[in-house]
Amino acid sequence: MTIDSDLIAQLCAPDPALPEDALDMMRLSLFDWAVCGRAGVDEPVARIVRDMVLAEGGSAQAVLFGGGTAPARGAALVNGTISHALDYDDTHFAHIGHPSVAVCPAVLAVGQSVGSSQADMLAAALIGVEASVRIGVWLGRGHYQIGFHQTATAGCFGATLAAARLLGCDLGQIGHALGLAATRASGLKVQFGTMGKPYNAGLAAANGVECALLARAGMTSRPDALSSDLGFGATHHGAGAPVGDAWLFPGVSHKFHACCHGLHAMLEALGELRTEVAPEQVARIEIETHSRWLSVCNQPAPETGLGAKFSYSMTAAMCLAGHSTAALDSFSDAACANPVLVGLRDLVRVTGDDSLAETAARVRLTLRDGTVRDGAHDLSAPMAQKVRADKLRTKAVALLGAEMAEALWRDVQRDDLRRLVG
Amino acid sequence: MTIDSDLIAQLCAPDPALPEDALDMMRLSLFDWAVCGRAGVDEPVARIVRDMVLAEGGSAQAVLFGGGTAPARGAALVNGTISHALDYDDTHFAHIGHPSVAVCPAVLAVGQSVGSSQADMLAAALIGVEASVRIGVWLGRGHYQIGFHQTATAGCFGATLAAARLLGCDLGQIGHALGLAATRASGLKVQFGTMGKPYNAGLAAANGVECALLARAGMTSRPDALSSDLGFGATHHGAGAPVGDAWLFPGVSHKFHACCHGLHAMLEALGELRTEVAPEQVARIEIETHSRWLSVCNQPAPETGLGAKFSYSMTAAMCLAGHSTAALDSFSDAACANPVLVGLRDLVRVTGDDSLAETAARVRLTLRDGTVRDGAHDLSAPMAQKVRADKLRTKAVALLGAEMAEALWRDVQRDDLRRLVG
Repeated sequence: MTIDSDLIAQLCAPDPALPEDALDMMRLSLFDWAVCGRAGVDEPVARIVRDMVLAEGGSAQAVLFGGGTAPARGAALVNGTISHALDYDDTHFAHIGHPSVAVCPAVLAVGQSVGSSQADMLAAALIGVEASVRIGVWLGRGHYQIGFHQTATAGCFGATLAAARLLGCDLGQIGHALGLAATRASGLKVQFGTMGKPYNAGLAAANGVECALLARAGMTSRPDALSSDLGFGATHHGAGAPVGDAWLFPGVSHKFHACCHGLHAMLEALGELRTEVAPEQVARIEIETHSRWLSVCNQPAPETGLGAKFSYSMTAAMCLAGHSTAALDSFSDAACANPVLVGLRDLVRVTGDDSLAETAARVRLTLRDGTVRDGAHDLSAPMAQKVRADKLRTKAVALLGAEMAEALWRDVQRDDLRRLVG
Repeated sequence: MTIDSDLIAQLCAPDPALPEDALDMMRLSLFDWAVCGRAGVDEPVARIVRDMVLAEGGSAQAVLFGGGTAPARGAALVNGTISHALDYDDTHFAHIGHPSVAVCPAVLAVGQSVGSSQADMLAAALIGVEASVRIGVWLGRGHYQIGFHQTATAGCFGATLAAARLLGCDLGQIGHALGLAATRASGLKVQFGTMGKPYNAGLAAANGVECALLARAGMTSRPDALSSDLGFGATHHGAGAPVGDAWLFPGVSHKFHACCHGLHAMLEALGELRTEVAPEQVARIEIETHSRWLSVCNQPAPETGLGAKFSYSMTAAMCLAGHSTAALDSFSDAACANPVLVGLRDLVRVTGDDSLAETAARVRLTLRDGTVRDGAHDLSAPMAQKVRADKLRTKAVALLGAEMAEALWRDVQRDDLRRLVG
């Protein structure tokens, strides 16, 4: 287990070779991250965290989603939390988490505070998310299954690397920063469905900024505390799974439905069937998914909009009834009480099938006349970059309106990252 | 496993019955904590963390050890780190950690920021450390052995409870604060011997302030995330050991020697013998201790002052030769090379005996004329409060000089806690 020194060797050269396809994907993820952050500013958790940090005052080092400024640590906490508030940001299934919401807030906060170039911020973001994904792979499925939230745990290390890079840490300082991150990183999956989930993204980003600032100022630690005996991996049920040096971040997924990513393959499959079927024809809805999702997003009868975002049965009902699962306001307490949706919801049966990829789902509709319609989808199927970009721009327009969406798109296209947050 | 709701029921009544002996012990620990903090301000780690927080600026909510002010979250981070920098603060062996350095910084930071009464700050401190100790017991030895630092992990929950109390959280908000603490708490033992160890105390205090502020502002979480399935205990190798409602904090130990707590019972036993024996009479020094300490503080021939703090043989030599083991500057590289001390050091033989309590040690001196002198000490043996107070005041004078030591003593005696930090 030498993931820490491997990552430093592979990713922390002063001028690393960054693949163009990875940089392109990073631009899309930065755009989508900013869209999610700007769309999330009115969420209650966004207001709470921003108000706390604004009340502290202090140096105007970085801009907050929703307005105002804060020191870099506070800005990272706020912007990480806000950008994950809608749970609409990118996902990497090998990472088992959301890479951008932990790393991008740290990059923007530190980059703004020290006046980094746009190219350096883009590179730091990519190096940070790549490190997060590789550490997520290294920690492995068991880390997630026992209850840790890789978004926050692996994400803290990626945020630390990105921040350390922008602060100009030398390799020794980067090692100490990662060592400090090993004692600082935290985040539990048990918070899913509460404000604690977006908070996990914010604390990962803030931890990364803090550990990098301290290491840059000379604080020392056990530089191998991620992988050592008694270190983070050993204490946190890490598998120490092999990680090569191939770039993993380009395998990231983006959300086109405003709910838990575990539901998306089902919604894509069902979305293709629903054009042929009226909701009142349906007698039974059978969903097969990898069993890992059953503890994540299988609330059988949610009563709140937030609960609906973690419910196969409710989102399947929404899809069949023609409620947009891309629009935020479809997920409401009222929808959970809507008799048509409740009726459809109660026709759903969800079963686990571990022969399916975790990115895949099968759906079977049995109609009242006995007819059966089968569908399937795998999120990992390749998607052309142009198709992805168009889908993300459409999502942005739906969330922010055309003017802001296109302004952000232009900023990202010319690597002008300063204005992403505001 | 219902430690969270048990603690709320037992400790979070608006006006709980706080035992007088526990309050008296809390006053002593607050005094000793402030002494350690004021004595630690020139340590490198103290300067680094204080400088980072001072550079952020912001609202002057609370005072820092070493001067200056910061918002409460930052002040807790700084004062927690500084007060543990010398590793000279109190220890609770059932907690397996240092309760005051996580809780007291949170109490002072929040208490100053909201203008709490002195009585409320004293009560919050006691409730916080008591909660930390009970959670440490509940997590158990396995949590520590696998690599977690109870000072930071259990300490975060105690700091959260104390801060939530001072912020006026209702019982529901206290539950959410503890739930947020479950996802925020962290701290690894692998940092021992680095600046990461005192940082662990600071991050616990800062986490507690942050979680309480957020819950007070309406942030919600899984209120049972400490004890639930997939919760903090389950993910962090917690034993879920039984915890009653007896007050445990009064069993706290204070350090009267500036070295690892595993050496203190031996030093107390030897200190009683040495008044009758001149060092040149000694032919052999036999020490028996619980074997868990042999991997912690049994460096046979340390070459540095830091190494001497983890050495039975060197501290026994210092004691017999009349070097104060209470004074910080006794532990120097020069002392490790002093021929008199080296000569005595090489007469020491240390053996493990697991029939001894971990708080106990036996010492046998064999003199050159064949005479044998036996001594023993158990740190858990009752110590009259007056004796403890006198020892702590002597330690304070040694660290800070008589004037500051006595001013702090007077402040604590009249529950005037505002001036402890400065």
